[in-house]
Amino acid sequence: MTNLSKNLEPLANVIRGLAIDAVETAGHGHPGAAMGMADIATVLYANHLKFLGTSPDWHDRDRVVLSNGHASILHYSLLYLTGVPGVELDDIKAFRKSGSITPGHPEVGHTPGIEVTTGPLGQGLGMSVGLALAEQRLRDEFGSDVCNHRTWVFAGDGCLMEGVGQEAASLAGHLGLGHLNVLYDSNQITIDGSTAISFTEDTAAKFKAIGWHVLEACGHTHAEINEALSSAKAEVSKPSLVILRTTIGYGAPTKSGTSGIHGSKLGGEEAAAAKGALGLPPKPFEIPAEHLKAWRTFGAQGAAAHKAWQARISKLKADVAKDYARRMQGDLPMGLHDALEKTKHFYFLEPKTLATRKASQLALEVFTEKMPEMIGGSADLTGSNLTKTSATDTVFSAAASGRYVNYGVREFAMAAAMNGLALHGGIIPYGGTFLVFSDYMRNAIRLAALMKAKTLFVMTHDSIGLGEDGPTHQPVEHLASLRAIPGLHVFRPADVIETIEAYEAAMTANGPSLFAFSRQGVAQVRLRQSTENLTSKGGYVLVKPDAPRDVTLIATGTEVTLAVEAAKILAERGVHAAVVSLPCWSLFDRQGKDYRDSVLGDVPRIAVEAASTFGWTRYVNSEEDVLGVAEFGASASDKELYAKFGLTPENIARQAHKKVEASFV
Amino acid sequence: MTNLSKNLEPLANVIRGLAIDAVETAGHGHPGAAMGMADIATVLYANHLKFLGTSPDWHDRDRVVLSNGHASILHYSLLYLTGVPGVELDDIKAFRKSGSITPGHPEVGHTPGIEVTTGPLGQGLGMSVGLALAEQRLRDEFGSDVCNHRTWVFAGDGCLMEGVGQEAASLAGHLGLGHLNVLYDSNQITIDGSTAISFTEDTAAKFKAIGWHVLEACGHTHAEINEALSSAKAEVSKPSLVILRTTIGYGAPTKSGTSGIHGSKLGGEEAAAAKGALGLPPKPFEIPAEHLKAWRTFGAQGAAAHKAWQARISKLKADVAKDYARRMQGDLPMGLHDALEKTKHFYFLEPKTLATRKASQLALEVFTEKMPEMIGGSADLTGSNLTKTSATDTVFSAAASGRYVNYGVREFAMAAAMNGLALHGGIIPYGGTFLVFSDYMRNAIRLAALMKAKTLFVMTHDSIGLGEDGPTHQPVEHLASLRAIPGLHVFRPADVIETIEAYEAAMTANGPSLFAFSRQGVAQVRLRQSTENLTSKGGYVLVKPDAPRDVTLIATGTEVTLAVEAAKILAERGVHAAVVSLPCWSLFDRQGKDYRDSVLGDVPRIAVEAASTFGWTRYVNSEEDVLGVAEFGASASDKELYAKFGLTPENIARQAHKKVEASFV
Repeated sequence: MTNLSKNLEPLANVIRGLAIDAVETAGHGHPGAAMGMADIATVLYANHLKFLGTSPDWHDRDRVVLSNGHASILHYSLLYLTGVPGVELDDIKAFRKSGSITPGHPEVGHTPGIEVTTGPLGQGLGMSVGLALAEQRLRDEFGSDVCNHRTWVFAGDGCLMEGVGQEAASLAGHLGLGHLNVLYDSNQITIDGSTAISFTEDTAAKFKAIGWHVLEACGHTHAEINEALSSAKAEVSKPSLVILRTTIGYGAPTKSGTSGIHGSKLGGEEAAAAKGALGLPPKPFEIPAEHLKAWRTFGAQGAAAHKAWQARISKLKADVAKDYARRMQGDLPMGLHDALEKTKHFYFLEPKTLATRKASQLALEVFTEKMPEMIGGSADLTGSNLTKTSATDTVFSAAASGRYVNYGVREFAMAAAMNGLALHGGIIPYGGTFLVFSDYMRNAIRLAALMKAKTLFVMTHDSIGLGEDGPTHQPVEHLASLRAIPGLHVFRPADVIETIEAYEAAMTANGPSLFAFSRQGVAQVRLRQSTENLTSKGGYVLVKPDAPRDVTLIATGTEVTLAVEAAKILAERGVHAAVVSLPCWSLFDRQGKDYRDSVLGDVPRIAVEAASTFGWTRYVNSEEDVLGVAEFGASASDKELYAKFGLTPENIARQAHKKVEASFV
Repeated sequence: MTNLSKNLEPLANVIRGLAIDAVETAGHGHPGAAMGMADIATVLYANHLKFLGTSPDWHDRDRVVLSNGHASILHYSLLYLTGVPGVELDDIKAFRKSGSITPGHPEVGHTPGIEVTTGPLGQGLGMSVGLALAEQRLRDEFGSDVCNHRTWVFAGDGCLMEGVGQEAASLAGHLGLGHLNVLYDSNQITIDGSTAISFTEDTAAKFKAIGWHVLEACGHTHAEINEALSSAKAEVSKPSLVILRTTIGYGAPTKSGTSGIHGSKLGGEEAAAAKGALGLPPKPFEIPAEHLKAWRTFGAQGAAAHKAWQARISKLKADVAKDYARRMQGDLPMGLHDALEKTKHFYFLEPKTLATRKASQLALEVFTEKMPEMIGGSADLTGSNLTKTSATDTVFSAAASGRYVNYGVREFAMAAAMNGLALHGGIIPYGGTFLVFSDYMRNAIRLAALMKAKTLFVMTHDSIGLGEDGPTHQPVEHLASLRAIPGLHVFRPADVIETIEAYEAAMTANGPSLFAFSRQGVAQVRLRQSTENLTSKGGYVLVKPDAPRDVTLIATGTEVTLAVEAAKILAERGVHAAVVSLPCWSLFDRQGKDYRDSVLGDVPRIAVEAASTFGWTRYVNSEEDVLGVAEFGASASDKELYAKFGLTPENIARQAHKKVEASFV
């Protein structure tokens, strides 16, 4: 690609014009960064990017991530200008309007050509690490004829200041992700003013210290940009950071270089003056035909490469082609279900007392053996999370892409990277930490749900049952707070059978799933042979009493076995208790009302969960009917803590009995 | 202090012995880091630390923070050895046992001499930044005769890998916190093995790049440690990082230098061999008398300095002494309540339509003017959060400690630093970001609640009402997830009156408070003159119908005014609706049952909140009785989004009417 001989400045100014007009028309938005990064984007798309506007879903395209997502109008403009089908000028005109495909921040699945949802700063960088990991893994698996592309990331000061961005950068440097190129829009301006008030690092030195290839250039001098991008591409043993000195709102006569242009429209006079200075037609959204044509040419540049790639794919061996297609489509492999049933059968025949984290590992053994697309990992808690299996016991390193990522003590970057892995295509990531540290990665879990990314969060040490590490490590409110996230499936399985079923349900569900597993061992509760995936219903009657039920005991996870024991005590006292296992609220709530009513029963109900009682009133009458943990835990053994909080079969039976007696009054 | 001429090695080994024996007796725990850092701690306490064992609450003591909190036995041993009252050898023997003052991780308020609760990695470093900020501010305010101490932080690899640790380090470097000294236990081992598998930065170069003074020393050579600590103290214009090369589990013959000694007891044989090699008595917990005596001498070294400080304090001018005492005791100033009542009076006379974030700023104007202990800030959203006031319009910088901290785009470090500011004494911190980004700082909010720190989290843009920035920026599940945190007061005030009352309630409450404020303007709902702080009750009847009520409309924040309008519509239709404003659930739940019942009413209830319906079944029958936002928002104007989700007076009235009619069936 040799478009540099042409004068690209007018083409960059077309982007600036769209940014100005779109924000002016909306009345709000963020023109500054888009105007500042227009030159960089133009040189990237003209001379370096591997993509084809008409095929935005080409598997082997370069990925473009706008980590500073508030500059969304830049990306929307690029999609329109390069001819991505479904992104029209009218969409640019509808920027930030209700129902448009051009919302305030880029959303994957909502706009063709958008790779990941960005806006929460730093996470675009984190997801880019995942995209680059996926690319490297698929390249090693299928060969560079099939997969060989780059991840380009626009990032601002905010992304580099955020902890998640720093964790991601550190991880990328450690792993030597040579196909990851970050374009740092160094405009010296944050929302609150000059970066001098809060951010005075020597960024180049810092990134060199963490293993990056660092380049610097003027972000408005095309030859400099071009040389820097070429150099970034040439270095494939390290990620590259290109520090581009830019002026925010470049082209605006009085507001450029100030925080005033970050998140506000220019205003009529300033907008007109800017457009004049940039040689743009005064009429809003007008693009000179030759400029649009030039942009469309850039958009078509990848055609030959795309065709060549298709030709190579068509020559793959049949079984490889089939596997590749299956993985990119996200289909489950043949034989998985049978293998799972076989495993369930084994545990039905020989029930085991296990920590559910161990059950998770046993389930993952089967899944990872059958599904080469699964990439595991942990935030430095492998031996505690039990996330490593025989099949994933190959470490992802700078030298080779194994199936296990040692994310280090970087929970947030792990979660963001997993989202990137999931969104790349061809990979299903899972990764572990303690449930309490879901806090550290919470916004990435939320983004997974918003993006419907199939990311699997394996959270162990799921209650006070973890014991002596005490309240800082004991989740209490976490189950409630995670269940509140729309579109996230939270599973808390009771034993190995439910665990296998939960993973299978997660694989077929749309969007992410989070699993809460115990540190401590519990008896298996699912003993009756069945090929039905009961967990996929979210909740079901585990123990049906001999006579019409007097009370329903609802429990999740490690407390199900306590409820089963309590039901036995109640039976001795002539009280007929049904035990309901409720491993996944969101799946249960999707069942028909008749099913839900039949499971819960029209009788007094008691819920048992070693966690906050918050939210349980969805299923029981009042929080007084929940045996839970209403305060922070303490440093003591699991048995002592369970007793302290009344989480014993005897107490459950007592409370249930009381409840039944009260209902007769 | 010149204890270096003595051989300190046996004294360091005393710590190692206690670590070995305590973990061995408990059967679990983390001996490795404590054994590795014993030499550093010994040199620090022998020669550098300003403290007095018998007065662990001396205001001007050096603060010691164990950011790698799993090494708690190190700190407990130091407290016992230096004679902190209430920490006895029996407490060391009870390590990690139920009810002991020596839990798995250090907890402030639980053990004398523990400054902050640590364990969630990186946050100790974050809180240390807050402790150092507080020290510098108080030094500038009251003079170095009153306040002039250091913050010493033990930190491990995990703390430096965590995003919050990196944000904190970046902020500390930017602010040139010269009294902050971090002792980095560089043992090359993480839980999953060698740091080589996940953490390969050039830490020294990185910290230099972000403005730190960096030193390196062997962590087992006392002269080297001593020199490094002296050098760290000498540099007062930058924070210092002392990189100390250590061996994890130093002294254990086969397990030292391996991850196997990180979180497990040594085992009988290894323990005995280690104690033998370290010259320790074989009997568990036995300390040779001369060694205990030497340690107690170190603990008493600060006596003269403490006495001199007391003498200086006694010579302060009466008004200064009074103000200092008030602030260190955490008492509210005289005149505050009257000023607040005057402000409320003003708004009762001239009601205003305001965004509640603006109401927050108006309230903060009064509080910050009366309370010099308040230090404000924002994570680069000052103009959006409206957290700056006339009184706090002095920037905290390397040159001078103002009353406003530009935290940069570092939400998690801001929250952790605020916790440190709150726990130092003499300071009440408040700081802002968008409510959706409470996710980024969530575990620090949790720690604030666990520590009962008076930290004020000012969260604006609290619902879909923020409009076109779209779903990445629109909180939905956040109110529910925050209400689930035990001990956190979540306030969502409806107008300026409730906002003033909420801040006043927060000031008198125990522990942290979080405020959710709107971007968009709403009409004032509190119009009836009253000096009663109704918000401090958590909830109250705002609108009482003329006749016995048929239905209760419960709402919070910006939806209260919608409920008030709905009640008017209902009145026209002959339905008598009471409107309940419920700005703080946790305070409401503390009221007596009679009060709560009288407020909520024994009639059908409808709840209205522009947020997830999760948890509302605490007050209404079913989530079907909640008008809320059950999915992610969208990029559109606030009015369009409110209409889309049915959050209009008409729809509220319609649903309420239906509910009333159904109740008659």
